[in-house]
Amino acid sequence: MAAPSNRHAFDEAIELTAHGDGRYTGHTHDAYANMVGPFGGVIAAALLNAVMVEPQRLGDPVALTVHFAAPIADGAFSVTVRAMRTNRSTQHWFVELVQDNEVVAFATAVTGIRRDTWEATDATFPTVPSATTLSPAAPRSRAPWTSCYDMRFIDGTIEGPTNEEIPSQSRLWLRDDPPRPLDFASLAALCDAFFPRIFVRRGTWVPIGTVALTTYFHADQTQVRDQGTEFLLGVARGVHFGKGFFDQSAEVWSTDGRLLASTHQVVYFKE
Amino acid sequence: MAAPSNRHAFDEAIELTAHGDGRYTGHTHDAYANMVGPFGGVIAAALLNAVMVEPQRLGDPVALTVHFAAPIADGAFSVTVRAMRTNRSTQHWFVELVQDNEVVAFATAVTGIRRDTWEATDATFPTVPSATTLSPAAPRSRAPWTSCYDMRFIDGTIEGPTNEEIPSQSRLWLRDDPPRPLDFASLAALCDAFFPRIFVRRGTWVPIGTVALTTYFHADQTQVRDQGTEFLLGVARGVHFGKGFFDQSAEVWSTDGRLLASTHQVVYFKE
Repeated sequence: MAAPSNRHAFDEAIELTAHGDGRYTGHTHDAYANMVGPFGGVIAAALLNAVMVEPQRLGDPVALTVHFAAPIADGAFSVTVRAMRTNRSTQHWFVELVQDNEVVAFATAVTGIRRDTWEATDATFPTVPSATTLSPAAPRSRAPWTSCYDMRFIDGTIEGPTNEEIPSQSRLWLRDDPPRPLDFASLAALCDAFFPRIFVRRGTWVPIGTVALTTYFHADQTQVRDQGTEFLLGVARGVHFGKGFFDQSAEVWSTDGRLLASTHQVVYFKE
Repeated sequence: MAAPSNRHAFDEAIELTAHGDGRYTGHTHDAYANMVGPFGGVIAAALLNAVMVEPQRLGDPVALTVHFAAPIADGAFSVTVRAMRTNRSTQHWFVELVQDNEVVAFATAVTGIRRDTWEATDATFPTVPSATTLSPAAPRSRAPWTSCYDMRFIDGTIEGPTNEEIPSQSRLWLRDDPPRPLDFASLAALCDAFFPRIFVRRGTWVPIGTVALTTYFHADQTQVRDQGTEFLLGVARGVHFGKGFFDQSAEVWSTDGRLLASTHQVVYFKE
């Protein structure tokens, strides 16, 4: 519905119009459509964007939890954002996404002032072939949003060979397509771009829906900007599947092996 | 302050007095004191308890995210709980904990009706000695709440030998002390009973504070009840430390190797 422009579809998809007092309006974007409603990652990004554009925001995103409370319809939505608590160096946020006077998604977030401290990474950056040696996966016709990402799998495709030790694991290089310089909003969306682990584990599509998603950001503004448009390495795996829900965890690494985000989600499945 | 009773201190600590319309009052408990204010796990449990006692609650806890927004003072607090959205088989919740008219903690939760489905666990239940062959760790005098848990470390104590492959990992059997039959509230608290990974990683105590905690519950009511008062196996590890924050993930297993919960948190640290 947007007029043709040189803007990246992602920027159009997360754009919010400010109405004052933490009230915004936005609109779902055809490019990021999913099987039903929009891709959850772009909704997460829009909710984080509401925090990012707030004038009193303190620091960079540290944590984001998004609840997908109900199906989101294609079309307009309202967002309200509220600083629940502002401390000296951290801030806690609550964001609601409303359609037809009903809350369909909501999020909590933490932003914080980043400063140099002791550093260590205990997650392991795997040894994998570079993105340039791999072919992009074909987009999934039933999930149009997959056309917005260039995904290059090392292992753990839905139909393909799985990792023997961790049968629900996927390792892939990924970035926006067309390439777009990384920012916190696109990083938040990328954290939801891993296919539901049940598809990989069972080698087939089954009815699912993400219920809640939590992302911890490890990069500050400079480190995010330094990534530019290069490929990120994602490593995702399932934890437990049963009684109608499963959870999965993933790490998102910079091209040169710096952990930018770790992310977790719980997903409803039907059978 | 509570009169002597046969009730478990945990039940006293999470007790809420109902005032109607989702409004409750509670009180911190000396037994669960931490270095500053109460142990976060018992606050998480009190916030979950507000959901559990709501008459319109649908199903068992599936996810709980708690934001520790500000220091919590020892003493009275108010809790308000609100169903953000009620679906056919899932419900999304928002809970606020207030002291002196300021939000000091808040939580989001998902409850859902559990039903038998396909099951698989991709996290690995480690081969470890049984709890009866191990000695309980001495409580930490600066953290009185540690007296409320019987913790028996296999590895990853603060001062002791660390796991060579994952230097921030701890594996321990743990349960309430005195023993108390497991329920969702105590499971939520146990998920925050793992020492901050930076203590294990660096072999020393440093100033820290949990900022936000997310737990995914994998057990239904029956499976939680089946655990009774037996030891749970906890496996916790750090993911990334840097720029003033770190995150850690853990699994909590039943005695016989069933994954009851997976849990993640992001923690502020000073230097």
